[in-house]
Amino acid sequence: MVLLSPSRRLRRTPFSDGVEAAGVKAYTVYNHMLLPTVFRSVEEDYRHLKEAVQVWDVACERQVEIRGPDAGRLVQHLTPRDLRGMLPGQCYYLPIVDETGGMLNDPVAVKLAEDRWWISIADSDLLYWVKGLAYGFRLDVLVDEPDVSPLAVQGPRADDLMAQVFGDAVRDIRFFRFSQFQFQGRDLVVARSGYSKQGGFEIYVEGEDIGMPLWHALMEAGKALDVRAGAPNLIERIEGGLLSYGNDMTDENTPHECGLGRFCNTQTAIGCIGRDALLRVAKEGPVKQIRALAIDGGPVPTCDRFWPVTAKKQLVGRVSSAAWSPDFGTNVAIGMVRMTHWDEGTEVRVETPDGPRPATVHETFWN
Amino acid sequence: MVLLSPSRRLRRTPFSDGVEAAGVKAYTVYNHMLLPTVFRSVEEDYRHLKEAVQVWDVACERQVEIRGPDAGRLVQHLTPRDLRGMLPGQCYYLPIVDETGGMLNDPVAVKLAEDRWWISIADSDLLYWVKGLAYGFRLDVLVDEPDVSPLAVQGPRADDLMAQVFGDAVRDIRFFRFSQFQFQGRDLVVARSGYSKQGGFEIYVEGEDIGMPLWHALMEAGKALDVRAGAPNLIERIEGGLLSYGNDMTDENTPHECGLGRFCNTQTAIGCIGRDALLRVAKEGPVKQIRALAIDGGPVPTCDRFWPVTAKKQLVGRVSSAAWSPDFGTNVAIGMVRMTHWDEGTEVRVETPDGPRPATVHETFWN
Repeated sequence: MVLLSPSRRLRRTPFSDGVEAAGVKAYTVYNHMLLPTVFRSVEEDYRHLKEAVQVWDVACERQVEIRGPDAGRLVQHLTPRDLRGMLPGQCYYLPIVDETGGMLNDPVAVKLAEDRWWISIADSDLLYWVKGLAYGFRLDVLVDEPDVSPLAVQGPRADDLMAQVFGDAVRDIRFFRFSQFQFQGRDLVVARSGYSKQGGFEIYVEGEDIGMPLWHALMEAGKALDVRAGAPNLIERIEGGLLSYGNDMTDENTPHECGLGRFCNTQTAIGCIGRDALLRVAKEGPVKQIRALAIDGGPVPTCDRFWPVTAKKQLVGRVSSAAWSPDFGTNVAIGMVRMTHWDEGTEVRVETPDGPRPATVHETFWN
Repeated sequence: MVLLSPSRRLRRTPFSDGVEAAGVKAYTVYNHMLLPTVFRSVEEDYRHLKEAVQVWDVACERQVEIRGPDAGRLVQHLTPRDLRGMLPGQCYYLPIVDETGGMLNDPVAVKLAEDRWWISIADSDLLYWVKGLAYGFRLDVLVDEPDVSPLAVQGPRADDLMAQVFGDAVRDIRFFRFSQFQFQGRDLVVARSGYSKQGGFEIYVEGEDIGMPLWHALMEAGKALDVRAGAPNLIERIEGGLLSYGNDMTDENTPHECGLGRFCNTQTAIGCIGRDALLRVAKEGPVKQIRALAIDGGPVPTCDRFWPVTAKKQLVGRVSSAAWSPDFGTNVAIGMVRMTHWDEGTEVRVETPDGPRPATVHETFWN
C-alpha cells in the first residue's frame, strides 16, 4: 500500500478525531472525504464485525437534500424504481441512471416528508446531476448538501448497543424504516440499514458539533459489548454481494447488468430519465451481469483494477472486487460475466496479477 | 501520513506503471483517480522542478467532451467568462458556477472547433452538472468523458524536452494555445499550459494504449536534461498562487472571492447560469477574498483542514493551503481573508495545530 497525502480537499469528518484515536491504519477517499478502511487488519476487523458490534464513520455517505413542492417529482426523474408507494419514514435503495440508462450512483433515499428527501449517496457527485436537472427543468425545489453525517452501528450486538444510547424503542425500527430519536436534545433520524449483512443502524447525525459526543457515547455505552471502531469491510461486503459504485459498476452499466433489475419498475416509473433506454433492456435482458465468483487457490492480491475473466482464451467478463474469505475458505469475488458463462457452476479463469486461476461462477452470494 | 487502501474505484491511469516504476512515495485521489504527489520528497521535487524538467501524470484532469450544434451555447451557460472572442486553438481558464454563483469547478476549456470542446476539470464530477443541464435544457449536444489523459511536461527545460519528441515546432506554441502534434501516427493536442509557474506543456493523450509509449519516449529523450517523474508540487503552487478547487475554494465561494473576478464578464456573458447572483457581487465586490499569507516561524505542519485566521481574537479568515518555502525562507500560504484585514501588510494570527503564529497578509503571491 502507498501513502495518502493529506490535504483540506480530502475532507475530514465530524468523527475523524475518534477514528484516529482508535488507531485507524488506512483510509480510502469517498465523495472527497476520508473513509476509514482498516483498524487492526481487514481479517481481524471482519471477525469482530461478525461477532460483536462496530461504530463506523460513514460520513462520506453525503446527503443530497431535496425539498420543495417538486421534490417527489424530481426524485422520480432520477430512478427507474416506482416511488408511488413510498411513505415518509421509509428508505429505498435507488438505482440512479442517466438518459442512456447508465448508473450514476446507487444511493439510499430517505423520505422525510412528501416534500423533503435525503439521498444518501455512493461515490459520485450526484448533487451536480440533481442540481443540473432541477435548474434545467425549472423545478420548484431546493437542492443542497446539508450538514448531515451518517454514523453506522453494525454487527449482531447493534440492537443492544443502540438501545443503551437511544432507548429500547430503537429495537422496533423495521428494516429500511427510520424513526426520530433524541440525542443531546436534538432529533436524529435513525434507520435500520447499513453496508453489511450483520444487521444494524445508520444514524443521520445532523450538526457536526454532536459528532464526537455521539461517538463517545456509543463507545462508552458499548464497553461491555466489546464495541470497536470499524469500517465497511472488504471481505464481508463481497461475501454478502454488496456492490460498490466505482468498483463493481460504473456509468457504463445498466441496473440490469448490476443485478438490480428488481429495483426497476421501468414501465410504471413515469418521468424516469433513461426510461426509453431501460424499457428495451428490461424486455430483452442484459447480455452480461454481476455474479459471485469463487477463485481457487490461496489468498489473491489486492484487486485494484479489473481482472479479466476468460474461458477458452476468450474474454467473458471481469472481476472488480476480490478477497480471501476465512469463513468460506475461498477467495470471494464480484464480477461481471457474459450470459454465455453466467450460469451457476460455470468454470472460468480469472487473470490475477499473479497469473491465471481457476474460478467458479455462482448465481448467489455467500451470505 | 496514513496508508491509502487501493481499489478499482480509485482508478489507475495510463501512466501509473511508469509512476510506480519511478518510485512514487505518495498519492492523493482526484476525480476518483490516483494523482502522484511525492517522488523523492516534496522539497527535493520542488528544487528539481524549478531547475530541470519533469513529466507529470495528471490523467486525473479528466475531460468533459461537449460536441454538437449547441456545444458553444452550453459552455457559455457554464461560466461568467465571455466566450464570444474565443477561437478554436485557444484554452481558457473558466470559473464554473451554479445558480447562486458558487464555484463548482475551475477547469481549463479547450476549444477544438466551434462545435467541439474539452473541459479539463478540477476535482469534482462536472460531467454530472453538464449532463444534467444538457438534458434539462434539451440541447443538441453529446456530453461524455473521452479516453483522454493529460500528461504534463513542466520546468525550465520543458521546451527542450518537448522539441526532442515532437520537433521544434512545439516551441512556437503560445501560452494557453494549442496545436496538434503526431506521436506514433496519432494526432495529439499539445497546449502550453500546466499547474506550475515554471513553464511547460500539457499533452492530451488520446487513447490509453499510447500512454506508456509516450511516457517512455519522454523519459528516454530527456536523459541529458535530467528529466524525472514529478507531480504538481505543493510548495511551488502556493508560491505561485495557483488555487486548488476543494482546498482553497468550494461551492460556497464566488469567483470574486477567489480572486477570479478578472475571468468574469458577467455583464456580457449572456446565458451564464448564476449571472443574476454574480451581477450583484460584481457591483458591490466580495467581503472576503483569497490572499497570500506569510506565516512566521519554522515549517508549519500539514494543512489538512481550515486553519482560522484571527485578529484581536476575532475570526477574520481561514488558511486552506500552507507549506514551508525554502526559496523564500518563510511559510507560504493561501487563505480567504475578510476585507477588514485583506490589505497588503496586515498583521494577523494563524491558528495552526501547533498553536497560534503571527502572519502577514499579502496582495500578491511570491512567483
